[in-house]
Amino acid sequence: MRIIVVGASAAGLRAAARARRRLPSAEVLVIDQDRFISYAACGMPYFVSGDIHSADKLRETPHGLIRDPAYFRSAKDIEVITETRVERIDRSARKVFCRSEETGEASEHSYDKLVLATGASPAIVPGVPKVSKRITTFKTLHDAINLRKSLQRGEIGKVAIVGGGFIGCELAEAFGALWGAKVVLIDMASSILPNMLDPEMASAVEAYLKTEGVEVHTNCPLEGMVESEESVTIKTPYGDFEVDCAVIAVGVRPNSELAADCGLAVGKGGGIVVDDRMATNDRNIFAAGDCVEVKHLLTDNPVQLPLGSLANRQGRVVGSNLGGGDERFGPVVGSAAVKIFDMNVAATGLTEGSARDAGFDVACAWGTFTDKADYYPEAENIYMKLVFDRGTQRLLGLQGYGKGEVVKRVDVFAALLKNEGRLEDLLSMEFAYAPPFAPAVDPLYSLGCAARNAVLEGVESVSPDIGLDGLTIVDVRQSDEVVATPLAENNAQNIPFGELREKWEEIPGDRPVIIVCAKGIRSAESVRILMEKGVSGARYLGGGLFMKTPGLL
Amino acid sequence: MRIIVVGASAAGLRAAARARRRLPSAEVLVIDQDRFISYAACGMPYFVSGDIHSADKLRETPHGLIRDPAYFRSAKDIEVITETRVERIDRSARKVFCRSEETGEASEHSYDKLVLATGASPAIVPGVPKVSKRITTFKTLHDAINLRKSLQRGEIGKVAIVGGGFIGCELAEAFGALWGAKVVLIDMASSILPNMLDPEMASAVEAYLKTEGVEVHTNCPLEGMVESEESVTIKTPYGDFEVDCAVIAVGVRPNSELAADCGLAVGKGGGIVVDDRMATNDRNIFAAGDCVEVKHLLTDNPVQLPLGSLANRQGRVVGSNLGGGDERFGPVVGSAAVKIFDMNVAATGLTEGSARDAGFDVACAWGTFTDKADYYPEAENIYMKLVFDRGTQRLLGLQGYGKGEVVKRVDVFAALLKNEGRLEDLLSMEFAYAPPFAPAVDPLYSLGCAARNAVLEGVESVSPDIGLDGLTIVDVRQSDEVVATPLAENNAQNIPFGELREKWEEIPGDRPVIIVCAKGIRSAESVRILMEKGVSGARYLGGGLFMKTPGLL
Repeated sequence: MRIIVVGASAAGLRAAARARRRLPSAEVLVIDQDRFISYAACGMPYFVSGDIHSADKLRETPHGLIRDPAYFRSAKDIEVITETRVERIDRSARKVFCRSEETGEASEHSYDKLVLATGASPAIVPGVPKVSKRITTFKTLHDAINLRKSLQRGEIGKVAIVGGGFIGCELAEAFGALWGAKVVLIDMASSILPNMLDPEMASAVEAYLKTEGVEVHTNCPLEGMVESEESVTIKTPYGDFEVDCAVIAVGVRPNSELAADCGLAVGKGGGIVVDDRMATNDRNIFAAGDCVEVKHLLTDNPVQLPLGSLANRQGRVVGSNLGGGDERFGPVVGSAAVKIFDMNVAATGLTEGSARDAGFDVACAWGTFTDKADYYPEAENIYMKLVFDRGTQRLLGLQGYGKGEVVKRVDVFAALLKNEGRLEDLLSMEFAYAPPFAPAVDPLYSLGCAARNAVLEGVESVSPDIGLDGLTIVDVRQSDEVVATPLAENNAQNIPFGELREKWEEIPGDRPVIIVCAKGIRSAESVRILMEKGVSGARYLGGGLFMKTPGLL
Repeated sequence: MRIIVVGASAAGLRAAARARRRLPSAEVLVIDQDRFISYAACGMPYFVSGDIHSADKLRETPHGLIRDPAYFRSAKDIEVITETRVERIDRSARKVFCRSEETGEASEHSYDKLVLATGASPAIVPGVPKVSKRITTFKTLHDAINLRKSLQRGEIGKVAIVGGGFIGCELAEAFGALWGAKVVLIDMASSILPNMLDPEMASAVEAYLKTEGVEVHTNCPLEGMVESEESVTIKTPYGDFEVDCAVIAVGVRPNSELAADCGLAVGKGGGIVVDDRMATNDRNIFAAGDCVEVKHLLTDNPVQLPLGSLANRQGRVVGSNLGGGDERFGPVVGSAAVKIFDMNVAATGLTEGSARDAGFDVACAWGTFTDKADYYPEAENIYMKLVFDRGTQRLLGLQGYGKGEVVKRVDVFAALLKNEGRLEDLLSMEFAYAPPFAPAVDPLYSLGCAARNAVLEGVESVSPDIGLDGLTIVDVRQSDEVVATPLAENNAQNIPFGELREKWEEIPGDRPVIIVCAKGIRSAESVRILMEKGVSGARYLGGGLFMKTPGLL
């Protein structure tokens, strides 16, 4: 048995190692076009930032061995050929045809089973050179090393980042935090992190980036780049930005040309089509990692999810199946996280927007919580949005941001999504509770209650980004809170929560009533009190002033 | 409708508030024997430690209002009577008979529905006064205030804590960290935190407590206490400990006397018996919180789980059902967490010991992991143990400790337990991945792989506390690692992992072989290499040297 793997990153090497273990007598050959293999690409922003001293750290085992071909030979009994491009696959002859990137020399190798782990390439912006002296993408370790060198040489005082996805946001921190570079982040979309956050959630992250000194422009398409000896000018409808360096980080596209050229099925999004065993439509060829499309659990649609965590899992499945196993991958819910300066951002499942697109009967709940017991000194606020189907009460998605522990809640929620969880499951979860880790009532539980109170009991909220003009606003905070943090709207009436049962009749009944408090707890109870008094139609501001006013965080 | 609730802590007040919301016209009366109500008892160790400045902080809303009867009247429309003990329930007349703790005056109240949320009391050690000048339990805010005053007056230079459960461990930190008191912790059990951790896991936490200056004695029953004007002497088989103050923290017992006296069913463990609607065997009486027993999901046995997180959830269920709802509680898996100095400890489900007692076909997997990407500067080690059923591959429990993020993994695991998860579910979980939050391959995934590799492929481990004498030990670490951290056993042979495929024949075949590395990764692969070479019966040290040698963490 001779197995060839194209691509020596997470998916390919994991498949190779697993196949090798399952089939001790097989020959396993991995071919990669790069000189650097098996490096932690997700760690590159932290190398650029200086948090990680040496690029080798991203290529090392925990015990200090560089993961190069010699390492894979001795530790894993796998042969790896580097700096060699696979140019063509002959499926009937079961051969791959290669060319050395160094010497140009051609070679060919026969396979019994082939694994395509060809990864993804940076998406290209029309009219912009992919790489030039002052313009770069951020995909390979070479890119990262070049940027780090430029920063160390003091050549980057101002940088433009095109694209507000994970990489763009992480790089904004990398350039700004240690090196003090002035960062301009532009995105043609109406908000950053659009696959992860709905606009009202993204706007808080944008506001936070601005407080950290990053200049953020959304709805800002790139109209061109003009490079000179001294600088590069970014042309946008909002004006020109002259910077020392521009990084294009507008996403990636699956490297599926090799697959398409030999007749393998490729999806509309450009990913290689695989079944749940990670096999292509040729039973001798498997594929894994950023080059494939996977099925979304909630929509049944194929999606591209270029995540190292999925690539590793897919690689293991391929390796097991090559060795005669029958393991399955997917469908996926698409959990993701990003740290931006001191803010943690995470999400899983569908956004409100994507859930609507998929035809769900979408409803949402918002909440501001402390991540630990509120009296615990290190407690931090977190801000969460729950997306669910109103009719079936099925859970659809969760988004969160804040300086506190957001990721834990997203990971637990993802486990519920995997089991087709409903709102009531949020109320039956058990969280390992102690004051340094969580409030006695976990944010996920509280969000579940808020959602059920809306659906089952009519205690309805409105999105934190609703316009409040023309509405009757009742602010139920204590008067000292109102003085400390007044509402921007001047049409608000203050009735402290504790006085509402006496003073509710002071609220004019001629217009829709929105109740506002700090976090959305007292205002939700206020809606209920008004319902008791026979006032219908009042709603509360979801997540409270904290979510409405990102500056408060 | 007149509702009476006995007990004004989490369960009782949550039930009262929820019932009040569902039944706007009902009268709701809460009766408590204490002056302080609705305080965060779980936060008391952090008040004793000085981390929390004022005891009021534990009684305040996030907006600075003290949760006293006036607050509950205005905010929740609930009447609360304090310092009043309910002495008797007449179920046929539907009355409770009370006595004022202040004046001794008797009173009686009629109910339509009654809620017992009477909590729990400290278990008593025979022959030891429950409270005296220098001996105290740690259950009420009064206890905490007294200890804090003594510490502030400099009266506690040395303290004995009897009981190595959550409270005992939290108090060890509270006395030691800020106040610099010398702490002696004794427990009659063979290891601390016995409901949460198996002995080999607890021993690491014990070792850590010792590095933080705490004197820990397990297998150490209390034989008596002798109090003098200047000190109290703790008598044990291991000698006498003379200290300024002793805290008895040997667990709690449900306060179910009131229930038992009026003929309500009480379980063997002393908890009030309730159905899944939290109703007792009298359909007009509900019970919730630390006074009830709940059913364990994995064993079907009744258990006492005095946790604030469960009390809150039970209270909401009672309140909903009082208001005509049909909500259910339980069964439970029993998640718990405790922070001890800088170490996080958490567990869910069954320990190996309790799983064996319950008749499962128990198998375990251990692992040492970084909680974040290993190259990320703030990554910390975590140490985990997975308990599962070998035959069915059903998940049974997870335990973890370490300075890194343990609780997240325990919470996700608990969600799987709730859905009767199997090993394969650990491999299909999606974790929101970015280097600051997790490795690309999450510890839970890796533990699942290790367990499956054992069950399905024969790559077996041994417990980190196995005695290594008389076995053939092969240390597959790099030679520089061996020099830096030599194995205590001198019968080890060093063959670096990368050389094993060449040198495996040097391993003598006459005795069982145990392979050792730092974390249990390379040694597991070594077992597989030996299997390929035809050497059977070799096993690896689960969790590696890091778990075997707690000092390394």
